[in-house]
Amino acid sequence: MRPVVIAGVGMIPFERRDEDSLVDMLAMAGLKAMDDANLGDRPVDAVYVGNMASGLFNHQVSVASALVDRLNLMPAAADRIENGPASGGSAVKNGFLAVASGYCDIVLVVGGEKMREVIGPKATDIVACMTHPNAEYIYGVTLPALAGMFTRLYMEKYGVTREHLTMVAVKNQENGLLNPYAHIQMKITMEGVLTHPQAHVNSPVVADPIHLYDCCPVSDGAAAVLLTTEDIANELKRPIVTIAGVGQATDTHTLQERSDPTDLKAVTIASQKAFSMSGIKPKDIDVAELHDAFTILEIAESEHAGFFSKGQGAKALAAGETQIGGKLPINPSGGLKARGHPVGATGVAQVVELVWQLRGEAGKRQVKGAVNGFSLNFGGFGNNVIAFVLRSKS
Amino acid sequence: MRPVVIAGVGMIPFERRDEDSLVDMLAMAGLKAMDDANLGDRPVDAVYVGNMASGLFNHQVSVASALVDRLNLMPAAADRIENGPASGGSAVKNGFLAVASGYCDIVLVVGGEKMREVIGPKATDIVACMTHPNAEYIYGVTLPALAGMFTRLYMEKYGVTREHLTMVAVKNQENGLLNPYAHIQMKITMEGVLTHPQAHVNSPVVADPIHLYDCCPVSDGAAAVLLTTEDIANELKRPIVTIAGVGQATDTHTLQERSDPTDLKAVTIASQKAFSMSGIKPKDIDVAELHDAFTILEIAESEHAGFFSKGQGAKALAAGETQIGGKLPINPSGGLKARGHPVGATGVAQVVELVWQLRGEAGKRQVKGAVNGFSLNFGGFGNNVIAFVLRSKS
Repeated sequence: MRPVVIAGVGMIPFERRDEDSLVDMLAMAGLKAMDDANLGDRPVDAVYVGNMASGLFNHQVSVASALVDRLNLMPAAADRIENGPASGGSAVKNGFLAVASGYCDIVLVVGGEKMREVIGPKATDIVACMTHPNAEYIYGVTLPALAGMFTRLYMEKYGVTREHLTMVAVKNQENGLLNPYAHIQMKITMEGVLTHPQAHVNSPVVADPIHLYDCCPVSDGAAAVLLTTEDIANELKRPIVTIAGVGQATDTHTLQERSDPTDLKAVTIASQKAFSMSGIKPKDIDVAELHDAFTILEIAESEHAGFFSKGQGAKALAAGETQIGGKLPINPSGGLKARGHPVGATGVAQVVELVWQLRGEAGKRQVKGAVNGFSLNFGGFGNNVIAFVLRSKS
Repeated sequence: MRPVVIAGVGMIPFERRDEDSLVDMLAMAGLKAMDDANLGDRPVDAVYVGNMASGLFNHQVSVASALVDRLNLMPAAADRIENGPASGGSAVKNGFLAVASGYCDIVLVVGGEKMREVIGPKATDIVACMTHPNAEYIYGVTLPALAGMFTRLYMEKYGVTREHLTMVAVKNQENGLLNPYAHIQMKITMEGVLTHPQAHVNSPVVADPIHLYDCCPVSDGAAAVLLTTEDIANELKRPIVTIAGVGQATDTHTLQERSDPTDLKAVTIASQKAFSMSGIKPKDIDVAELHDAFTILEIAESEHAGFFSKGQGAKALAAGETQIGGKLPINPSGGLKARGHPVGATGVAQVVELVWQLRGEAGKRQVKGAVNGFSLNFGGFGNNVIAFVLRSKS
């Protein structure tokens, strides 16, 4: 496999974007990545779009070829990749393979989702379409419901407390305040969420023990990366950030079929594959973007990915190790919690944040001297996970 | 790129399959391909699913990881690929890249669609979600409507007649009678469609000049291929059919923006790319599977792919050159017209038919001595096209 380099990145602020269609958002992010790569009029060989549910959210399919037309990139190949909330990571992986194989030299990968086009609980129902149709969905299971049960088990097994969960939310919303692309720009405090007389109003129960501030918001947004060879990136005079490792793994569709439902096997295996391919170890990672769709997931993933042993993630968090300036900053972008989680965009947005961090372009949320980055995109409830290890050459 | 071999193929009969869910169908086809490859207990590295609209047809997403679970292939990577009616071809292409790159050794690609879960005109609406939302869909454009306008233009420009269109239908339904996997098992005649007093009842107008028998049926079904390296295929003691060429190209989203709407540029470019990569020329092809969702498309694609010059496709058809036993048999399987068109399955089913033909396993519809095969999967209305050249080594 020939090395694959990220020569350009782009993103639009995640928020409620009523004025923009899905393809508008994909086009804006894609143009930014092409501009960032100094691409000029070089032809793009292929466009990959990561998107979970344009059919259900927007009554539109085949958005990859629609994007190629909008960006006037014909006759570039176009593929839409869907893997639930891991659609973005999947799209980056397939773009990576297109360049690594030698079949393509320049590939644009864009992830995006327009979720706010549907009203109220409809979005939760659409997201729940990834659950098992006969074993989960028909019983009314939603993602917050699964996360609630998972959180309860994890708290009991590993001594994670509601304070720990709230620390994730407080940290990530604090980081989000430093990220102009983040949907939620609001400082919250431990006291306001936990002990204030109005705490039950500020952060009401969603699916016990999960409260409102344990959940990511429902957002619109898009993010993009331009992948190419090292030679072309050098010709474009762009800093070299290499995709050093790619790992993907699946697990059972339902949590109930896992011998230990707190054991996120696909997270462990995907991470190990990415680390093994890269030759980089968890201790060498300077910054990580994890998939905190629910606060417990940041803690659980930080353990399963190999950064902390089981049961130690919450302690590292409480000790400040995962803050910007700590030993391993996790989600300096604000994560899904603050940046938002337009599902198909997330896996790409994580990679965009890492590239900014590894290039030293992350502004107020910069992790100093970051060279190696790690991202983890979590699909289903851990049944399809994609991990990347990125390395800066500069 | 290392060579990629199809070591196993599988398919379930296309028909109305009320008893089977989408994932049931994908699993049945996938198991057949793994069995056909003599795979035994070798691990599958990745599973690609080609599917257009499981969200809209079946209220389910993330079917690739669901399939991995159903087949007990964890922790294999899983990706669903969506490209409208070219989803199957797109999935084969991405599976090809996974093996060609060296990232995976064994990849299962399954295409499938369960369209009959929705009632009546709803299926036509869902398929129309691939049209341009502002320039086509809101005006009530459907795929038969686009095909009707395209057919009229093509007839006027190239002297194609209603008799020619009917010849495609008669030939392909004749071929379908030789294919146990075909949805439509019914002989039709030129007289019954064109001149019989009940012709207007037998094949009523759908979108003038298109009649009922110019359209493919709405079907449920799935097809699968197992991709691997030549070394592994030899270890598995399977005949070697190589993916010698892969081409993909896009065109404008709307027909109205094309300087000549009868010019299917993406078909021409995708075919040229596949031929160029393979070193095989159109004249060397022994059997072709083209995307005859509407009868005009078989004629137009046979010209744009390079088998006949413009305006000569209908004449070759009338001269019997494209029948089994003719100079270039087209759609010996019965094509989309008779085999059916469960959208996500089609691009994979075309490749399955070619493999059967190149191995000499196509039974009564066998094209004698076939060595080189060509398939063309046509997405949108020609805005995303994927072509393959296959070569038998045996």
